[in-house]
Amino acid sequence: MTRLPKDPRLALMLLSSIVEPGDAELDDLVDEAGPVDAVRRVWEGTVPDRLRRITGATVACTHDPADRADQLASATADCGARFLVPGDPDWPDQLRDLMLVCDANEPHVRPPRGLWVRGEHDLAQLCRRSVAIVGSRAATEYGQHLADDLAADLTEAGWTVVSGGAFGIDRAAHLGALARGGATVSVLASGVELPYPKANRSMFDLIAQRGLLLSEWPPGASAMKHRFLTRNRVIAALTAGTVVIEAANRSGARNTARHAAELGRVLMFTPGLVTSSQSAGVHQLAREPWEARLVTRAEEVIEDLTGIGGPMAPAPPQERRPIDRLTETEARLVEALPRGYVVEAARLAAAAGVPAETATVTLARLKKIGWVDQIDNRWRLSRGGAY
Amino acid sequence: MTRLPKDPRLALMLLSSIVEPGDAELDDLVDEAGPVDAVRRVWEGTVPDRLRRITGATVACTHDPADRADQLASATADCGARFLVPGDPDWPDQLRDLMLVCDANEPHVRPPRGLWVRGEHDLAQLCRRSVAIVGSRAATEYGQHLADDLAADLTEAGWTVVSGGAFGIDRAAHLGALARGGATVSVLASGVELPYPKANRSMFDLIAQRGLLLSEWPPGASAMKHRFLTRNRVIAALTAGTVVIEAANRSGARNTARHAAELGRVLMFTPGLVTSSQSAGVHQLAREPWEARLVTRAEEVIEDLTGIGGPMAPAPPQERRPIDRLTETEARLVEALPRGYVVEAARLAAAAGVPAETATVTLARLKKIGWVDQIDNRWRLSRGGAY
Repeated sequence: MTRLPKDPRLALMLLSSIVEPGDAELDDLVDEAGPVDAVRRVWEGTVPDRLRRITGATVACTHDPADRADQLASATADCGARFLVPGDPDWPDQLRDLMLVCDANEPHVRPPRGLWVRGEHDLAQLCRRSVAIVGSRAATEYGQHLADDLAADLTEAGWTVVSGGAFGIDRAAHLGALARGGATVSVLASGVELPYPKANRSMFDLIAQRGLLLSEWPPGASAMKHRFLTRNRVIAALTAGTVVIEAANRSGARNTARHAAELGRVLMFTPGLVTSSQSAGVHQLAREPWEARLVTRAEEVIEDLTGIGGPMAPAPPQERRPIDRLTETEARLVEALPRGYVVEAARLAAAAGVPAETATVTLARLKKIGWVDQIDNRWRLSRGGAY
Repeated sequence: MTRLPKDPRLALMLLSSIVEPGDAELDDLVDEAGPVDAVRRVWEGTVPDRLRRITGATVACTHDPADRADQLASATADCGARFLVPGDPDWPDQLRDLMLVCDANEPHVRPPRGLWVRGEHDLAQLCRRSVAIVGSRAATEYGQHLADDLAADLTEAGWTVVSGGAFGIDRAAHLGALARGGATVSVLASGVELPYPKANRSMFDLIAQRGLLLSEWPPGASAMKHRFLTRNRVIAALTAGTVVIEAANRSGARNTARHAAELGRVLMFTPGLVTSSQSAGVHQLAREPWEARLVTRAEEVIEDLTGIGGPMAPAPPQERRPIDRLTETEARLVEALPRGYVVEAARLAAAAGVPAETATVTLARLKKIGWVDQIDNRWRLSRGGAY
């Protein structure tokens, strides 16, 4: 007789290892029957045809599902991970929003059934004030520099940076956050014990120590292209907003961006050169009807994330010139004096659009503070009066 | 007895030479009394106090206003210019829109009283399909290259490029238009006989031959800072939209942009590096509540200018990869195969989320077209099957 896992968490873990996330039929079955009974029905073959065909091969070669579930639990524990499910205190409830946007065209855009988590932090708490920074793997130096800077400054301001662990922008964002001691979150498309790409291993080790590695796939699962796309919805749903830093026209980052927009998250992008193929995707984003916001620094990201109630980004520092200290009438007269010319007061007043008497008084004052020189009734700019 | 000009056009020319554009009191007086009578009242001193003070010095030293008007007419004819006034068949009626936005804070934002025009074209006709390209004088090579390209492509598409004749972006835009034989329009802040800056003289000569030089100021008037700001409203009002290419945080181009937005014209900008001070102003523009549109090429500008009814910018060319020719199921299976590994059919089907039978059929087809190799019941990517 087939031994079935008795613990719902183990049952969900098992189901997550044999059916890809976002399978509406499996999700419905779990909702209806509970995970334990769902496993039973999968192994009995009393599930809809399509689901039976998908699970058939695994069922045929797995005679002891309870044992397979135990193996998964051991593999999870062995890499220092845990398996979170909806309803756990540290389950991030914002993932539920995915339920609002999944439709027939994109059935896989559904909340995850569970998440493997590696790291000490409370996932829900860590993502309460979080922002995704995503972008191209083939990023330019400029893009990586921006990602690093933004992540560092957002971390400093108390925001958790979430990204996907890839080369390029993702890596720069994670490293920028880590550099400020930030508990960054990496959402993976492979098992949490061997994050992809391997070349980022030392970064992933740091993230596991100081932040969190997340995956919908069990230990042992390898990163596959469609899994990256599936994963992107989690990055978008976990966070209050997504910043796309660089993206080519075809790019996973744009996919994450679309999810963010559809979920009502704040969608932001950093601009770049019109001539850069790595910026083509973000510039295209700006022209799509998603109200993507152009951001250039962390204060602007925070302003956009926190909305009307939040802090306003201070205006960028403006150069203050000597002429800014003059009154409007004074400035008009000074500006109306062509450099190197000597001009009659009446003509100057007319050119500046200032009444003649006002001009006389104002020019006297300007002379006193060293802006203009008087020669009979004619005036010229002082040599010192640069503006 | 004071001789007054009898011709309304001459009277308006005279008034334009002694009171700066956008003077509400003078404009009201002209509307009420007509230009000839307005001149009489100015010379009699029977005008509001402020206006009397502004005009007083000129009136005091000009005993023959008719003669002064004739001198202006001669100077206008001498440089091959004419003086257009509202109501003339080639007067651009869209300038009237300025009346809708002038308010107490910005009294000078009013339609021009008249325009000195140098060049052969019909101003109204030339500006019927026109677009302003403006930006920083201290533009980067990147910005100038963009301005030149955009102007050339817009000209080729039948749009008239309008700008301000300054160094940097303005110059690049005019030259880009001229290079394609375009009748570009330069709106000046000095007299049309000696456009500022002098170093652009050969460009201005070309524009006078092939396009139009415009000014609200008479021959002999020199460019003053406040005149540039006053002039900007004409650039914004003449055109269907304004593209800001590069601008520092303080910049006349941003002033033109604001006028364009307030006039309901289409406001556009080209992005640049976040780290460039010459792009700081345009990026700031994008965050202001003006719905400025990000544009990267002429097709997008035209799309935005022509609105819903107009041509859509074709999507940027996308790289087509071999895998794009596969069906979705085929692509999922190919992508689920890790490079360099040999994978069982059942496991591959599960990972790809494809029913086992479908996988079998599809893998056979993929083998036939050279994407995968079969080894017993296991599969791997063909060496030739790059995607």
